[in-house]
Amino acid sequence: MSRVYLDYNATAPLRRDARAAMIAAMDEVGNPSSIHAEGRAAKAIVEKARAQVAQLVGCAPTDVVFTSGATEAAALIVQNAKGAVFISENCHDCFWAHVDEDAIRHIPIDHDGHVDSAWLDMELQKTHKILRQPSLVAHSLANSETGVLEQGMIRRAVLDNPAQLVMDCAQAVHRGSVCFNEPWNSFAILSAHKLGGPKGVGALVIRQGLDVQAQIKGGGQEMGRRSGTENVIGIAGFGAAAEAAARDLANDVWDRVAQLRNILEKALEAETKNTIFVGKGSKRLPNTSCLATPGWKSETQVMQMDLAGFAISAGSACSSGKVKTSRVLKAMGYDDLTASSAIRVSLGPETTEDEVLRFVDAWLKAEKKFRAKAA
Amino acid sequence: MSRVYLDYNATAPLRRDARAAMIAAMDEVGNPSSIHAEGRAAKAIVEKARAQVAQLVGCAPTDVVFTSGATEAAALIVQNAKGAVFISENCHDCFWAHVDEDAIRHIPIDHDGHVDSAWLDMELQKTHKILRQPSLVAHSLANSETGVLEQGMIRRAVLDNPAQLVMDCAQAVHRGSVCFNEPWNSFAILSAHKLGGPKGVGALVIRQGLDVQAQIKGGGQEMGRRSGTENVIGIAGFGAAAEAAARDLANDVWDRVAQLRNILEKALEAETKNTIFVGKGSKRLPNTSCLATPGWKSETQVMQMDLAGFAISAGSACSSGKVKTSRVLKAMGYDDLTASSAIRVSLGPETTEDEVLRFVDAWLKAEKKFRAKAA
Repeated sequence: MSRVYLDYNATAPLRRDARAAMIAAMDEVGNPSSIHAEGRAAKAIVEKARAQVAQLVGCAPTDVVFTSGATEAAALIVQNAKGAVFISENCHDCFWAHVDEDAIRHIPIDHDGHVDSAWLDMELQKTHKILRQPSLVAHSLANSETGVLEQGMIRRAVLDNPAQLVMDCAQAVHRGSVCFNEPWNSFAILSAHKLGGPKGVGALVIRQGLDVQAQIKGGGQEMGRRSGTENVIGIAGFGAAAEAAARDLANDVWDRVAQLRNILEKALEAETKNTIFVGKGSKRLPNTSCLATPGWKSETQVMQMDLAGFAISAGSACSSGKVKTSRVLKAMGYDDLTASSAIRVSLGPETTEDEVLRFVDAWLKAEKKFRAKAA
Repeated sequence: MSRVYLDYNATAPLRRDARAAMIAAMDEVGNPSSIHAEGRAAKAIVEKARAQVAQLVGCAPTDVVFTSGATEAAALIVQNAKGAVFISENCHDCFWAHVDEDAIRHIPIDHDGHVDSAWLDMELQKTHKILRQPSLVAHSLANSETGVLEQGMIRRAVLDNPAQLVMDCAQAVHRGSVCFNEPWNSFAILSAHKLGGPKGVGALVIRQGLDVQAQIKGGGQEMGRRSGTENVIGIAGFGAAAEAAARDLANDVWDRVAQLRNILEKALEAETKNTIFVGKGSKRLPNTSCLATPGWKSETQVMQMDLAGFAISAGSACSSGKVKTSRVLKAMGYDDLTASSAIRVSLGPETTEDEVLRFVDAWLKAEKKFRAKAA
């Protein structure tokens, strides 16, 4: 029986359009910085992709700075912060890593995964009185583990204060959530491989008029904001994937995915007792289900499902194989036993109902064994 | 008539092996950080490539840290420097950009493109007495514009002092110049696209036991030295290109390229009067010819040759289309009129004698017109 891939939030399969664009780009020999015909042809590939990505995000092409991924984009923007750095507990590890722990202001999230905007508003005011510099506020438009979406709580606090918002849109931009065309967004972060492009490409979107100092300097590529010869093949794939993702949105592809996710959750709910569907009460990504079964270690579940032919994950995949207790779930108020039992099942446009039902069967079988053993 | 690509030092065409490895990698859906079968398969691609690159360089696979290119690798190592930073005039822009101009110690080069080791030795001693920290010395194993090779002048100064050497091997490693297996190398910098891999991938090679703090942090990939989901497809191409490059070396492919370069230079020498063959007296890369014809602007030549069907370059290609007077030639003591007239013709394994002869004809025709106009 063929394997079932239900780990789209870790990385999505390369889309057919992205593959074709990448293979076509392989034939262009030039360096985009070269002024001869070969160089100009390579540059044209990069600029076409920039327009495709801008179209998906709702910004001007010149707002898009290509990077080697969302992590580099987060490093770039966080290291540019002059004032305080507020990071919501919804944010990916890569935001936290670039500020000294005692300099970070943690934006708490509640049990539903939402930030407390009144707290943020007050703290931004207080901080500005002391530092006299605009704060940087980092948040995820959708949390990668739970799929919980930002519901606008953060925007008033940001608009009412001298603050800049960087929104991590890696999981959300291609799944129906508006990303950049709102005045409260200063910066947005994108990842190609989350939307069916290749791994190792991403972008920082910078609102016009805002200044960002390069961290990787040299040849002055990407309008001086990120040097280094462009990943032409990868960028071509990113652009094509972004265009395909926009087409999916227009065709309501994710509505079908949401139906499958709901079929999955209903089937599991009917047969389990102790399993918690984390974030289910909140607006979520259409494709994500986060299940916690207290006492049944996430890692054990992932390995059991792997052996049974299913790829799912425990928490964030960006931890080099380490499985840690979910920081996000702990921030939402779940205890250790619960947080360390969370798995993420994330579907994509290619997922079929048959695959979902096969997963339900396999997981419920394993869950029954766990319950029998625990009893 | 088909175009002739003679700009291998700017970027080399994607090798057949690299292309095949990249297309194969497109079918692996997993994130290398995921612990399931799909994740492990993606990780295996990255680790295979790491071994292939290590084999070419002559180091252990664990010494290789993949980056988004040579520029990021240079940024990473220069930003790690604790003591003084000595940068040779042979180095690429990306080394200079990460240190304040007044904190850089410029290592002068002579008219042949070689560094003054006695000067360096003395300065390293003086600096260490003041700073009490080992200095970082940056040098290019081969200069990208002239092809002039490092001839060991730097190694004694580095070995005799508390200093660490970072050697930019981007142009040299695949063209017959030993790269990392010498005790005086602390760090080496590689670029995939210079050796027939894709653009947007490179590596920093770190001698065992040396510490490098990550600049891009988060998931802890690349042994904690460079976070971000790996560019799996690009890295696969880098590995395959490195293996193919090692095979080329074993088959003396570059000897034939050197013969073609010599045919080119002899033919031009016979017909020109004022053209200088920069670095010709030094040991050079087998594929590179740097021609300066005082008064005839580099940019004009590049554009004329482009219209005639040939891709060559003026100085370094990594300047986003800008053509600047060559910093390297000025450091070698050439005057502005000469330095601003330098072009680089760089050949590769795919270059044919017919292509070289066609270039000779076209360039000499243009040169005659220039002389007639100037007269």
